[in-house]
Amino acid sequence: MTVKKDYIRPLDLRQGRVDMNHGAGGRAGMQLIDEVFARAFDNEFLRQGDDGAALPAPPPGHRLVMATDGHVISPLFFPGGDIGALSVHGTVNDVAMMGAQPLYLSASFILEEGFALADLKRVVDSMAAAAREAGVPVVTGDTKVVERGKGDGVFIATTGVGALPPGRRLSGALAQPGDVVIVSGTIGEHGVAVLSQRESLEFETAIVSDTAALHGLVADLLAAVPEGAVRCLRDPTRGGLGTTLNEIARQSGVGLLLEEAAIPVLPQVDAACELLGLDPLYIANEGKLVAIVAPEAAQAALAALHAHPLGQRAARIGVVQADDHRFVQMTTRFGGRRVVDWLSGEPLPRIC
Amino acid sequence: MTVKKDYIRPLDLRQGRVDMNHGAGGRAGMQLIDEVFARAFDNEFLRQGDDGAALPAPPPGHRLVMATDGHVISPLFFPGGDIGALSVHGTVNDVAMMGAQPLYLSASFILEEGFALADLKRVVDSMAAAAREAGVPVVTGDTKVVERGKGDGVFIATTGVGALPPGRRLSGALAQPGDVVIVSGTIGEHGVAVLSQRESLEFETAIVSDTAALHGLVADLLAAVPEGAVRCLRDPTRGGLGTTLNEIARQSGVGLLLEEAAIPVLPQVDAACELLGLDPLYIANEGKLVAIVAPEAAQAALAALHAHPLGQRAARIGVVQADDHRFVQMTTRFGGRRVVDWLSGEPLPRIC
Repeated sequence: MTVKKDYIRPLDLRQGRVDMNHGAGGRAGMQLIDEVFARAFDNEFLRQGDDGAALPAPPPGHRLVMATDGHVISPLFFPGGDIGALSVHGTVNDVAMMGAQPLYLSASFILEEGFALADLKRVVDSMAAAAREAGVPVVTGDTKVVERGKGDGVFIATTGVGALPPGRRLSGALAQPGDVVIVSGTIGEHGVAVLSQRESLEFETAIVSDTAALHGLVADLLAAVPEGAVRCLRDPTRGGLGTTLNEIARQSGVGLLLEEAAIPVLPQVDAACELLGLDPLYIANEGKLVAIVAPEAAQAALAALHAHPLGQRAARIGVVQADDHRFVQMTTRFGGRRVVDWLSGEPLPRIC
Repeated sequence: MTVKKDYIRPLDLRQGRVDMNHGAGGRAGMQLIDEVFARAFDNEFLRQGDDGAALPAPPPGHRLVMATDGHVISPLFFPGGDIGALSVHGTVNDVAMMGAQPLYLSASFILEEGFALADLKRVVDSMAAAAREAGVPVVTGDTKVVERGKGDGVFIATTGVGALPPGRRLSGALAQPGDVVIVSGTIGEHGVAVLSQRESLEFETAIVSDTAALHGLVADLLAAVPEGAVRCLRDPTRGGLGTTLNEIARQSGVGLLLEEAAIPVLPQVDAACELLGLDPLYIANEGKLVAIVAPEAAQAALAALHAHPLGQRAARIGVVQADDHRFVQMTTRFGGRRVVDWLSGEPLPRIC
């Protein structure tokens, strides 16, 4: 899609807005694709210009991994990121948590009539930069437009495909009593950054989203321990660490015992949570992972995480134990013990 | 995700509505996934219950094909289909148009607060039935919820992955002068069915959407002619046959000459178009394909299409010719000749 002479004038990327024509199948939509999407994401696959992309398959013996995520975060721009970068990181991370090497992304955009083209370009450029940085190209896409009041600026659904090496199996169903629970860094930054932007709160120390692609960190972690020693990886996004750990407990039919003092939280996130009446355990992260690791591999796993820029504050935060009730419990700073239940109280909508 | 005893009571699938809790990451969201999505789509991959699905790769030597489509059709239910079935057919067809065998689908749902759970269940059940019928499982998914007035019931973005046999290449860039243009059946039913529903029009003869998965038809077509004889396949959805043919002409740098009398249109679609002031050439189809075929293979291609239930009214509608202007022209019923331009006039929004 590189023929550009068809258009009478270029899109007005400063003052222009999305209109229904951009989604109707025709010249306007094609111009939007050429001048915003194709230009930003440019790669050999997208340049094929067909209804889909034809792609090299994973190496022989590898399986495929496929993961998808819809992104509806509000506001679209927040400290440390925006919906574009997030939509790359979120899906790259879902593929990486399966133990796979992310290879390709697809992107489906649902635009609201009246959305500023300047904002769209900013989102798409950020998304393209995140994809380049991650080394995972957006190889195919789609754009639809809905009437004003039937959408909210832009929603982005991304799907990732990755290559899973022979013999590798990571799953939330594989946690065993005695395994160690590790988190790759401080929790709660993403959710607090978004909420503070939403509430127009200003904190003394800036809190920025941790949004990041974790496949490099995962590759280093998996290379440092024997195959099978990492039972499960999860990125504790929506619902936070507390929800993710409950999911693992439920899936594996085990209990978890956490140590509150071991869970890394930035002081400014702690303070903001106190102010907002929130528990960092339930706040979304977009650049952290939880690893359930065999006890004999925990030391090597932690060392590998610590050696990577995204894992410097990795910590051992608990253990897996036999428990028919599949409870996640926590030894508190005061020496007591409480249940870390499924998310209760007010939900935090549209955090990713 | 088969543990169901956690929930105090089952979802109220008759009177219940989507609320923000269903998208917040927690027990309510998990219940929605268990009782609506997982139950309908049930398959071995989805049952893994992880952030993504681990899947058998395509056979050795095959490449991957990846295609994505967002679905925002309004109304959600229309004669002959609904957004659920459509979201399967649309993406299966995009994969098939590349000449690939569709293998897997992912699905991302964006729900509006207040959307009736009964409608959601109806959509998901229809989607699951379409996936089963097509033999292409939904292997992974995601659900988000946006506030009332920030969405429109449900949007569904589906991504498909397929296997492309060695040596196969189909592309809109491969049309050559002398090639034959074939359409697999009557055009315009989907768009007219949706518009008539939207405008509450009733016609003497019911017009139903042609929404269907075309990969079986494609497989039969490709098996009937030598590799390379089918240059390009496209499903003329949004923007209709006229837009699709202009895209091919642009991509290949050729002209097309159509014969109006050869283009199959149901009489009731013709009549409805006249009433609505529409041209069937620009009306969306969801169960038709356009094939650009080498002249010596045209006969065999048509025979293969005619032998399949979805291609019985296939017709040869024109030829490819050299034309630096890349015009799509048409010999009219009255013997004149006109240019079939890119879609002009009022767009038809949210037709898929």
